Amino acid sequence: MMSSERLKKQIEFLAEIDKLKKVRRQTLLLDRSRTENDAEHSWHLAMLVLVLQEYADQPIEPLRVLKMVLIHDLVEIDAGDAFIYDQAAQRDKVLKERTAADRIFNLLPSDQAEEMRALWDEFEAGQSADARFAAALDRFQPILFNCLTEGVQWKKHGVQQHQVLSRCDVVANGSRALWADLQVRLEKAVASGHLTLQEE
Amino acid sequence: MMSSERLKKQIEFLAEIDKLKKVRRQTLLLDRSRTENDAEHSWHLAMLVLVLQEYADQPIEPLRVLKMVLIHDLVEIDAGDAFIYDQAAQRDKVLKERTAADRIFNLLPSDQAEEMRALWDEFEAGQSADARFAAALDRFQPILFNCLTEGVQWKKHGVQQHQVLSRCDVVANGSRALWADLQVRLEKAVASGHLTLQEE
Repeated sequence: MMSSERLKKQIEFLAEIDKLKKVRRQTLLLDRSRTENDAEHSWHLAMLVLVLQEYADQPIEPLRVLKMVLIHDLVEIDAGDAFIYDQAAQRDKVLKERTAADRIFNLLPSDQAEEMRALWDEFEAGQSADARFAAALDRFQPILFNCLTEGVQWKKHGVQQHQVLSRCDVVANGSRALWADLQVRLEKAVASGHLTLQEE
Repeated sequence: MMSSERLKKQIEFLAEIDKLKKVRRQTLLLDRSRTENDAEHSWHLAMLVLVLQEYADQPIEPLRVLKMVLIHDLVEIDAGDAFIYDQAAQRDKVLKERTAADRIFNLLPSDQAEEMRALWDEFEAGQSADARFAAALDRFQPILFNCLTEGVQWKKHGVQQHQVLSRCDVVANGSRALWADLQVRLEKAVASGHLTLQEE
């Protein structure tokens, strides 16, 4: 590939992913003024990698984990953000996201498309140490934010403690220390009435 | 420091930097619906590092460049975004940003505070290969976006070609290839009337 054609594809990809800034999530900013978007979330996760990497249960390669969190939500440009407690949305998610990955990563020159797709597949499979820690942070951040914003979004969506706990295996699977921290926060959230117990 | 106290400081830092999502820049999203914020910009720059690193004129360490672009605008939480063509704002910028760096990085445990501050100082000094490439991308991205949005923001602020060119040394200083790409785009912007020549 000629150099200028290669750069053209790279810039087309970089322009396309600008759309990640328009994909809204359910997580509130800590000042509660609005929900965050996927680009902001991806940046924040990258900062979690830099600051919290010592809590990974297995040795990780920070550069690979950073790449995973930076690209992990690009598929949502096409597939949208499926709210984690919406079971119907979660069912469709896998197929939609794979179709999106086929389109978006292939905007890049093939060597870079293959590298990013392999990283995204590894993240989705969740088996390697790097993928487990990346997934743990991706699950830790919104639950932490819900605790720090007094469960406003949990209440809005009627989410109960058992539903949150059922999603925490991903955190525990990558970082026992962060899971221990989250357990304390979730207990406090229940005690303060920010997270409700299952109705009888 | 006890483990739990260390984690507490780390999470306080990660919560504080949520404010980066509220610092608005002058660069438009490519759909022109609004301007981007510093968190989105930092994420996008990290993606530029991943995709465009082959165009660095000197060998770089991708992990260090990624760290620099992820943290380079944190000081704007306190100091705000000084529009690059606003000379008065640029004069105050250095002192304000150093004061901000003193406060924000020191929320972290001291070892991490020192590492991040050293990286930020290196980025600001702009001398190392990593800092030069990070700065080149940080300058390339908004000019690219202005070209891709037909100079709407240039026109809004009355910015002329000579002012844009006077800021391009930072791009040329880190990546001749990206500077060559930008030159072609800027010539087209002038030819299309999206960027005006200096008035007589």
